[in-house]
Amino acid sequence: MSLTLSIDAMGGDFGPEVTVPASLDCLKKNPQLKLILVGDEAILRPIMAQALLEFDGRLSIQHASQCVAMDESPSKALKNKKDSSMRVAINLVRDGAADACVSAGNTGALMATARFVLKMIPGIDRPAIITTLPSIYGHTHALDLGGNVDSSAEHLLQFAIMGSEVVKAIEGIENPTVGLLNIGQEEVKGNEQVKAAAKLLENSHLNYIGYVEGNYLNAGSRPVDLIVADGFVGNVALKSIEGAAKMIGTSLKDAFNQNIFTRIVGLIAYPVLKSFKKRIDPRLYNGASFLGLRGLVIKSHGGADVLAFSTAIQLAEIEVEKNVIQKISEQVELILKERQGLWQSTQE
Amino acid sequence: MSLTLSIDAMGGDFGPEVTVPASLDCLKKNPQLKLILVGDEAILRPIMAQALLEFDGRLSIQHASQCVAMDESPSKALKNKKDSSMRVAINLVRDGAADACVSAGNTGALMATARFVLKMIPGIDRPAIITTLPSIYGHTHALDLGGNVDSSAEHLLQFAIMGSEVVKAIEGIENPTVGLLNIGQEEVKGNEQVKAAAKLLENSHLNYIGYVEGNYLNAGSRPVDLIVADGFVGNVALKSIEGAAKMIGTSLKDAFNQNIFTRIVGLIAYPVLKSFKKRIDPRLYNGASFLGLRGLVIKSHGGADVLAFSTAIQLAEIEVEKNVIQKISEQVELILKERQGLWQSTQE
Repeated sequence: MSLTLSIDAMGGDFGPEVTVPASLDCLKKNPQLKLILVGDEAILRPIMAQALLEFDGRLSIQHASQCVAMDESPSKALKNKKDSSMRVAINLVRDGAADACVSAGNTGALMATARFVLKMIPGIDRPAIITTLPSIYGHTHALDLGGNVDSSAEHLLQFAIMGSEVVKAIEGIENPTVGLLNIGQEEVKGNEQVKAAAKLLENSHLNYIGYVEGNYLNAGSRPVDLIVADGFVGNVALKSIEGAAKMIGTSLKDAFNQNIFTRIVGLIAYPVLKSFKKRIDPRLYNGASFLGLRGLVIKSHGGADVLAFSTAIQLAEIEVEKNVIQKISEQVELILKERQGLWQSTQE
Repeated sequence: MSLTLSIDAMGGDFGPEVTVPASLDCLKKNPQLKLILVGDEAILRPIMAQALLEFDGRLSIQHASQCVAMDESPSKALKNKKDSSMRVAINLVRDGAADACVSAGNTGALMATARFVLKMIPGIDRPAIITTLPSIYGHTHALDLGGNVDSSAEHLLQFAIMGSEVVKAIEGIENPTVGLLNIGQEEVKGNEQVKAAAKLLENSHLNYIGYVEGNYLNAGSRPVDLIVADGFVGNVALKSIEGAAKMIGTSLKDAFNQNIFTRIVGLIAYPVLKSFKKRIDPRLYNGASFLGLRGLVIKSHGGADVLAFSTAIQLAEIEVEKNVIQKISEQVELILKERQGLWQSTQE
């Protein structure tokens, strides 16, 4: 079974400099993969000439005359950039020419465009962003990481339903555990939004295990498969983790750079430090999926390098193979029917 | 000038095992310091017999017959534990027998008791919790870390006013920079609460620099003296950082524990790793102050060891010496008068 992805080749801080080599790496690794690189043909064709021959039939260019800037407002991008590499890449998903789209472009514009072009799955009100984080137990999936703010309890339930389907599909776990991000584990803790969401989750079919605190994202006292939060809270948590990791990394580097002796020690310890770094390398966790849309869009970190962008492409490959979008749609449809049945039975 | 602190000797996961040796360490370090250890005299007196002689006139025991459990509900503690070590220690502050109180006890109970016993500074609606975090620029102060949830924009402004006074007093910075925790730096970003707070901060006398993201707590692209957030968001961010630090520390340890060779490398690198660890050791950042009350209460991490609890006591010493509570009260009174003046002038 072949799978086709559209790549926003112009997106991200580095554009084709990163997206093209990452795409070629992924084509080498997966012989079933087909890629459509979307962007300015005048820029892409010269740097891809050899690759187009090498991967004949599996690699193509789709011209797009415009480019969404990293700081462009979503509404302006939506209105004025109808031929942007981002928009055209998403159009290919809508038209069935691609199974999913990968972009390192402006998150807000990507979300607005994806929502406008692909539309929502009926029964889901808002799209959510899910990603995978390394944890002391392996890893944890978390959403929403910034798709929404001021989410209602019902929205948090929808996020949990969608996230559970992703974890089931990707990890092959039958009944993933779901935790709700809160500031304590006792029932009385939390804001109004979270307390109301807890009630909905308790009464759902999900494997809800209760409140979890921020440390559960990387290192709680027990593993959790999926952590659900409002997009404001989830985004702040994710960025806080990024900041902590950067500070710790900087301090470690500084400690080995103090003087000639510590530098020699650093050389001796280099292979160990390298294996440590690999374990928590954020590039190996790059890629967040937009859930709730009638098509798959994967967002890469804007500052992604070749390795990181390849990880995002590979995530798209997995989610297409595992049929994530269809599974979410079916599950949501099932729940809607159940609710309707429940509603009808209370009317009778 | 001598200063007196009341210590909740029974609080925290380890009680007197930690609080007593930490207290003695601080008495040794600061000859101006006087400590009143509050708790069960039958437990405290035997283990403090020698110290009471050594620090005669500077160390005393105040008996309290009860103890607040770490998982006790704040309302129950408030109602049923009127002779708890926590309550009596706070009473000493109210009565002027101590300049501040330090406790590693149950945060919710400590906050409820402190609020009930000490009362709020007029003009401040809710107490907030402030702490110091290590950052690549030195350190950053952040509040609220869990005192409140569902804060209004006005509350966030009050937190910023109080936090600024703390930073001014402790750091000796005249006009500390204030950032508002958000999910992006652009004006359109954020939830309703944050957008409304931004307007209030822009029109305040504070040195407001705009939105900052979660990574600014430890490693933003520029330094910020004070970061303001709702207690829900601030608490999740703090715990997320704790989890990230724990995961990274575990991974580093694992990398050096893989086999006999990596262990030898670990021994060689030990002094460097130790200096690295010291830079980010959370024990050296232990201690969060409750702001907005008419008396100073410092909360230590429940799991604090002797070094960590000593840090919290030293924080109390600094805040008493710098007259933090009085400075906050004066500043709030000034602002209230200005507002009243403004209000009156619009009425004329």
